[in-house]
Amino acid sequence: MPDSFKILHSSKDGPYRTGILNLFHGQVKTPCFMPVGTLATVKAVSPDELKEAGVGFILSNAYHLYLRPGHELIRDLGGLHSFMNWDRPILTDSGGFQVYSLASMRKITEDGVVFQSHLDGSYHKFTPEKVIAIQEALGSDVMMCLDWCTGYPVERQEVEKAVEITTLWAKRSIEARERRELRLFGIIQGGMHKDLRRRSANELLCLDFDGYAIGGLSVGESQDIMLEMIEEVVPIVPRSYPLYLMGVGTPEDIVEAVHRGVDMFDCVLPTRNARNGMAFTRFGNLNIKNAAFERDSSPLDPECSCYTCSRFSRAYLRHLYKSRELLVYRLLTIHNIFYYMELMNSIRQSIEKDTFMDFKKRFYEQRANKK
Amino acid sequence: MPDSFKILHSSKDGPYRTGILNLFHGQVKTPCFMPVGTLATVKAVSPDELKEAGVGFILSNAYHLYLRPGHELIRDLGGLHSFMNWDRPILTDSGGFQVYSLASMRKITEDGVVFQSHLDGSYHKFTPEKVIAIQEALGSDVMMCLDWCTGYPVERQEVEKAVEITTLWAKRSIEARERRELRLFGIIQGGMHKDLRRRSANELLCLDFDGYAIGGLSVGESQDIMLEMIEEVVPIVPRSYPLYLMGVGTPEDIVEAVHRGVDMFDCVLPTRNARNGMAFTRFGNLNIKNAAFERDSSPLDPECSCYTCSRFSRAYLRHLYKSRELLVYRLLTIHNIFYYMELMNSIRQSIEKDTFMDFKKRFYEQRANKK
Repeated sequence: MPDSFKILHSSKDGPYRTGILNLFHGQVKTPCFMPVGTLATVKAVSPDELKEAGVGFILSNAYHLYLRPGHELIRDLGGLHSFMNWDRPILTDSGGFQVYSLASMRKITEDGVVFQSHLDGSYHKFTPEKVIAIQEALGSDVMMCLDWCTGYPVERQEVEKAVEITTLWAKRSIEARERRELRLFGIIQGGMHKDLRRRSANELLCLDFDGYAIGGLSVGESQDIMLEMIEEVVPIVPRSYPLYLMGVGTPEDIVEAVHRGVDMFDCVLPTRNARNGMAFTRFGNLNIKNAAFERDSSPLDPECSCYTCSRFSRAYLRHLYKSRELLVYRLLTIHNIFYYMELMNSIRQSIEKDTFMDFKKRFYEQRANKK
Repeated sequence: MPDSFKILHSSKDGPYRTGILNLFHGQVKTPCFMPVGTLATVKAVSPDELKEAGVGFILSNAYHLYLRPGHELIRDLGGLHSFMNWDRPILTDSGGFQVYSLASMRKITEDGVVFQSHLDGSYHKFTPEKVIAIQEALGSDVMMCLDWCTGYPVERQEVEKAVEITTLWAKRSIEARERRELRLFGIIQGGMHKDLRRRSANELLCLDFDGYAIGGLSVGESQDIMLEMIEEVVPIVPRSYPLYLMGVGTPEDIVEAVHRGVDMFDCVLPTRNARNGMAFTRFGNLNIKNAAFERDSSPLDPECSCYTCSRFSRAYLRHLYKSRELLVYRLLTIHNIFYYMELMNSIRQSIEKDTFMDFKKRFYEQRANKK
């Protein structure tokens, strides 16, 4: 799809840029971050709260929705957008990563992958065709190909096999595709081997995808290794394609990856850490359980204008957290998502103004300076 | 306080009426229902959502807030309203009922009650004076006297003692009171004995309270017995006082108690049942876990205009509940609170129009007619 991504402003100093993704349910500015809504809900918050926090694009998951409540049920109820009352774009992960990380058993053949559900141990088989059918039933704005995600550390031989199978499945995914209005991205594998990353990228680039993702990172390797793999892939993928780094990451990871040319991100960190009592702020991370906040009448971040910071003190949030009151998971989630959205806003604005390097310097200074 | 309650419309056919409570943080129309916000939060919902559902008055709890996070901490942070970001009236229960129902030990003397915290087993003593001081520190619009709440069944001798002590403590509560802008209600005890209910009411009526509550009901007795106790008390309490039935109840309980002259209610049912997957609707109660709702695209109540019913299907709510997703506790709580607020609206409107008996007939017909 030549019109699926438009570059707005390219930096002269590096591969970073701003752009617009044109998707079935609307446009998304890049670099962008997608909060994770695994089970057709971004945990603890409502669709309205996501919009209020500035979210325009979320991620959901073919593996999880296939198992529960079932993609056919969702299709029959009007598709995922209607089911969860979200009218902006959704990207769905294919399940390759979940079969790797969650299933109690997986057996991969050329044909596909047989696995046991993490919920009840029942046996299931995913083929590339099946996973496209699931995502078309859901009506995802961006579908991801079934891939073979390898861990870390792992034998080189397994990574080679994973690259080979991922390419084979990518071809079959493109052939299986029926709903042309939905975008389809290929996933570059190759573990922590530069040559295999190049090979995977080059093989997938022969196929007609709307965008490319870097998969199989953030599986236990250091940030240095992750960034090396990104640096290996970026020069190979033509700049006309959006580049998506799957499952990453911390604010620092995102800033570094944008610097190296990545356009799209998703991660459970802002939502999961919120439920564990951790707030991201521009002045570093904050654990609301900390006794220092017992009588602290200031908001989580004194310079934040989110719903939570406009209304509630650290002392109140700490009280709710210590009392395990449901409201606190929501309030911290709203704040963390708002923080990530503001981070992406600042990144985009600084790129537009050619001040990304200044932004990056200030970002690190502030994050090290707790308030 | 002669201006604390104004009757708007009295029925010619019974002791039921509409009225206005004038409280420090605003006016409240009666008959009214207060959702329960035990720990400075109505579980699973935000203050904004309470307002959107039409809530003008909530209940919180001196016992719980004294133990956690502490009434002095709340006072130092500006009082309970500021702490929880709620600017409408709050009534706080004194803790008499919680000491009875939650504390792992309680020893009552004329002076007060010694009990062990249900949280950590630590020893504490409540006197009438202490409980007034706690509630004045919180800044409750309506404070409740410390009372001795008896269970059911129980020896008559204990109930007699409870009535005697409750009156003694009521006198001391009035003397201890310092913040005149906050209302103070006495609590009528007397178990399931008509003569003791009359005695308790008459003794408390000699004291200068702003309103009267019926305590010690909804502790295991049948609805018939509860209604008999209400019928015993109502003719004794001058009609110029607001009458509050504590901890009650189902929609049916409320309709019957209003009919008999009660003006105020609180209960955990709409919020607690929501968290257990139960929705109140005008067409009866509904268990969202029910397999019948798996593919049901209709809202919880087809005639409800609440936030939840305007946006989400039974199928989606069931999916969230089965997946234990946090959003569902909120969505069901919003619906149930809205249902209770609409019930009170309908009750007030029918009283104003002198059609309460018609309302009551239709209420029972609809509740028996599932949709």
